[in-house]
Amino acid sequence: MSDLLLDQPPAGASAERSRRGGRAGKRVSGGASFDQPPFRQLHIPYANTRIVSEDELESIHLASLRVLNEIGVDVLHDEARRIMKAHGADVQEGSERVRFDGDMLLELIAHAPSEFTVHARNPAHNLRFGGNNLIFAQMGSAPNCSDLDRGRRSGNQQDFRNFVKLAQVHNIIHATGGYPVEPTDIHPSIRHLECIRDLATLTDKVFHAYSLGRERNVDAIEIARIARGISREQLMNEPSLYSIINTNSPLKLDVPMMEGIIQMSSMGQVIIVTPFTLAGAMAPVTIAGAVVQQNAEALAGIAFTQMVRKGAPVGYGGFTSNVDMKSGAPAFGTPEYIKAQLLGGQLARRYKIPYRTSNVCAANQVDAQAAYESVFSLWGAIQGGANFMLHSAGWLEGGLRCSYEKMMVDIDLLQMVAEFLTPIDLSEDALAIDAIRDVGPGGHFFGTPHTQARYKTAFYSPIISDWRNFETWAEAGSPTALERANRLWKERLAAYEEPAMDPAIREELDAFVAKRTAEGGAPTDF
Amino acid sequence: MSDLLLDQPPAGASAERSRRGGRAGKRVSGGASFDQPPFRQLHIPYANTRIVSEDELESIHLASLRVLNEIGVDVLHDEARRIMKAHGADVQEGSERVRFDGDMLLELIAHAPSEFTVHARNPAHNLRFGGNNLIFAQMGSAPNCSDLDRGRRSGNQQDFRNFVKLAQVHNIIHATGGYPVEPTDIHPSIRHLECIRDLATLTDKVFHAYSLGRERNVDAIEIARIARGISREQLMNEPSLYSIINTNSPLKLDVPMMEGIIQMSSMGQVIIVTPFTLAGAMAPVTIAGAVVQQNAEALAGIAFTQMVRKGAPVGYGGFTSNVDMKSGAPAFGTPEYIKAQLLGGQLARRYKIPYRTSNVCAANQVDAQAAYESVFSLWGAIQGGANFMLHSAGWLEGGLRCSYEKMMVDIDLLQMVAEFLTPIDLSEDALAIDAIRDVGPGGHFFGTPHTQARYKTAFYSPIISDWRNFETWAEAGSPTALERANRLWKERLAAYEEPAMDPAIREELDAFVAKRTAEGGAPTDF
Repeated sequence: MSDLLLDQPPAGASAERSRRGGRAGKRVSGGASFDQPPFRQLHIPYANTRIVSEDELESIHLASLRVLNEIGVDVLHDEARRIMKAHGADVQEGSERVRFDGDMLLELIAHAPSEFTVHARNPAHNLRFGGNNLIFAQMGSAPNCSDLDRGRRSGNQQDFRNFVKLAQVHNIIHATGGYPVEPTDIHPSIRHLECIRDLATLTDKVFHAYSLGRERNVDAIEIARIARGISREQLMNEPSLYSIINTNSPLKLDVPMMEGIIQMSSMGQVIIVTPFTLAGAMAPVTIAGAVVQQNAEALAGIAFTQMVRKGAPVGYGGFTSNVDMKSGAPAFGTPEYIKAQLLGGQLARRYKIPYRTSNVCAANQVDAQAAYESVFSLWGAIQGGANFMLHSAGWLEGGLRCSYEKMMVDIDLLQMVAEFLTPIDLSEDALAIDAIRDVGPGGHFFGTPHTQARYKTAFYSPIISDWRNFETWAEAGSPTALERANRLWKERLAAYEEPAMDPAIREELDAFVAKRTAEGGAPTDF
Repeated sequence: MSDLLLDQPPAGASAERSRRGGRAGKRVSGGASFDQPPFRQLHIPYANTRIVSEDELESIHLASLRVLNEIGVDVLHDEARRIMKAHGADVQEGSERVRFDGDMLLELIAHAPSEFTVHARNPAHNLRFGGNNLIFAQMGSAPNCSDLDRGRRSGNQQDFRNFVKLAQVHNIIHATGGYPVEPTDIHPSIRHLECIRDLATLTDKVFHAYSLGRERNVDAIEIARIARGISREQLMNEPSLYSIINTNSPLKLDVPMMEGIIQMSSMGQVIIVTPFTLAGAMAPVTIAGAVVQQNAEALAGIAFTQMVRKGAPVGYGGFTSNVDMKSGAPAFGTPEYIKAQLLGGQLARRYKIPYRTSNVCAANQVDAQAAYESVFSLWGAIQGGANFMLHSAGWLEGGLRCSYEKMMVDIDLLQMVAEFLTPIDLSEDALAIDAIRDVGPGGHFFGTPHTQARYKTAFYSPIISDWRNFETWAEAGSPTALERANRLWKERLAAYEEPAMDPAIREELDAFVAKRTAEGGAPTDF
């Protein structure tokens, strides 16, 4: 499968443009009218960094099993408890507490696939999840957004759509990650219908559905099916939608989570179980303890997907970080965060479950802090063997904000990471002994045939970094990375083109959304 | 040796303060009146990331040997060529070209120690170079400096001293790295005398001498000897000074370099051979080719140290990066730079020579770009198994500037890296099963005994990162990392205390500098 994904021409409307541009080198015309590397499935070719020994890893694993066996989790959903009991979990009548036997859990988890394809409506944008594959998904779930011109504000539909368009336009963004910003101007009862239709039409990439009540999952699954133009049976065998389940840490699985797993897993769609274990707040103050708890919660959720349907595609999500013990505010991109990322990766690999992590920061502005916290997160993600990185682009302010400028900086960072993951050319020609001989001691390589033949594509060409010398840069008004990002997102948004969709499919999709909207959408209490 | 370095009380004048403060946790009183982690020898406990296979590494090694054998290097120093010829190199009368046999080179290099101690005048600041030890040295050699208040300017003695004091005051800076900024207000003939006396008196950490002519090396070695109060014989057995040799790429070794190696290596002092191989300019445009050339030049220089004195302490320096092919400007912290860092680390380990790399960026301002380029450099350094990181703190503008604010941001980054390298506590208590049991599903860990006992020292506490929520941060005037760094360096500089020195040693040092100054210092043409 993954071979199919390599160097495919871009999707739909932009294929023609791509044929004109060709694939001459590292910067070729992509899905829009600017140069960028082509859409491709990334792989991490390097060994993951092991932060603990096998024995130490086992001690964490065993501690998690003790937590699940001796303490257990509270499961607030009656049907879920019945399913768990049917699979041998210790469930007492009249209590929400569920305890698990370790062997039973491991037997269930062994049914989960270690690698699978997630299907997009454009097959060129299909993604491999697991193995050494790496997927970058846009930021999700910010209540606010900001740009340098208009400042910080609550999310609305226009900003939501702008961010989704930026995700479509950039080949390095493999998938959207939920709602990049919450469109608070759409009533919650029908918000999911509007938003998921947008995700399915404004992009042709893999998308996410929130698990916020049964109806929303059912609607999202149907939209994913219609958009791909396939039967329910085909959908069941071809994961085409994913949903993140954040456990209610510590040790609580609530009704919408369990309904989400039941709907998604029974339909063969992807669940990524991600405990939200902030050390010192919802988890122990020690990194080891927080990860023990993360692991216990993840194992419980992952096992439940396999109770619902053996072989259901599922990911192991790690989100452990620390809080500022002075204020309780969450911190990201910290040394503790990187350690938890590496440890989470080792655990996920132990269970052979694809691993999800994030590109996150706590900064309030796209300044040095935002950048170093993000690159530390990328460091932990890549060295930890991430398979899926949510919040890859746009995340600011601990997730409370999606920033247009941060999105552009992140896209540059992601493109740099992709280039870092591309193996070094070690051909005879690249070793360049003849070129070194031709130039000789004291010479210069500018303008030599070896350089001339390669200089246009030899190096990654950044979109944000400014490499001008000080004088030239100062004459240009001393622009910061933030200011360059501000100019760039507007250019990139202007280059957006809606990907083609079969008119019959579009009609079916609109009819479904209209029908569900007329029915009132999903129930709310207001 | 390295055990001795762990958790030592800080040096001289500040020891008393430290005893008052104790070492309760991660932030204890250090060499000055603020909280910081103690001075300690760092280790990289994780496996290095291998970017190429053993076979591929061998192809680079063999290509480098071919370059040295078939092309050779130009050696501009007559005595050096005589020494090389005496050791079996192919030297033709009337030509500067020297060619080397691979076996001869490898035999020589095998004499270099794989790990050794570099001595500071304060033994608590001795450093281990090699193995999995990691040393952070301040930036060196910037012609300019800047701060947010006074902008960018040529270096002078006051700024030079300020940066040196900041290096002394921060425990995470293990050594100075030459002149953080060039004090252009001191005449070059005596600049080295003034500067090295400052390095030896304003700090009690390991320092560097430039190889810019025989006299300067001889003077620096004598100052290092006097400052430690030891004999020449003891000095020969105890490396107490280091010098970076940047080869004149491509493939040229000039007079000051060779004189530097002859003086330093014959006296048992540390040479770090660092080719300055910018791909596309002084080296082939391919990363493989640039590293082949880097490796050839490094091997030639390292072998020469062993011709001068078998067993002389020497390091393998990697500085390969790419240039902006549009302007020829050097770029740093790029994907190509990280690849070269990892590859350099693999090569240095192949030869069992301690590895030197850098923390560098091309940014003109302490903005997001400066931060992400730096953290990418740190990523490559740590995963590449760096033993010595020059330019650890202060580097801006491709090395043309040392920035007060960048220095503070870098110190935060280095402290974070140090914390990342500290193993996770996996004790029964840290696994926290009992704490998880006590809190139970749906509870909270704030204020529990397990948290209370640990919260003060559980997490790294940053000096630049601002974790306040948006509202509080905005009320405080929305300070960027740059602005916070600006406030901080002034506080830190004010906390500087000159480390104690035996008055007799100080007198001898001053007398030596006075005598050499009276003699005119080192010859210059102006």
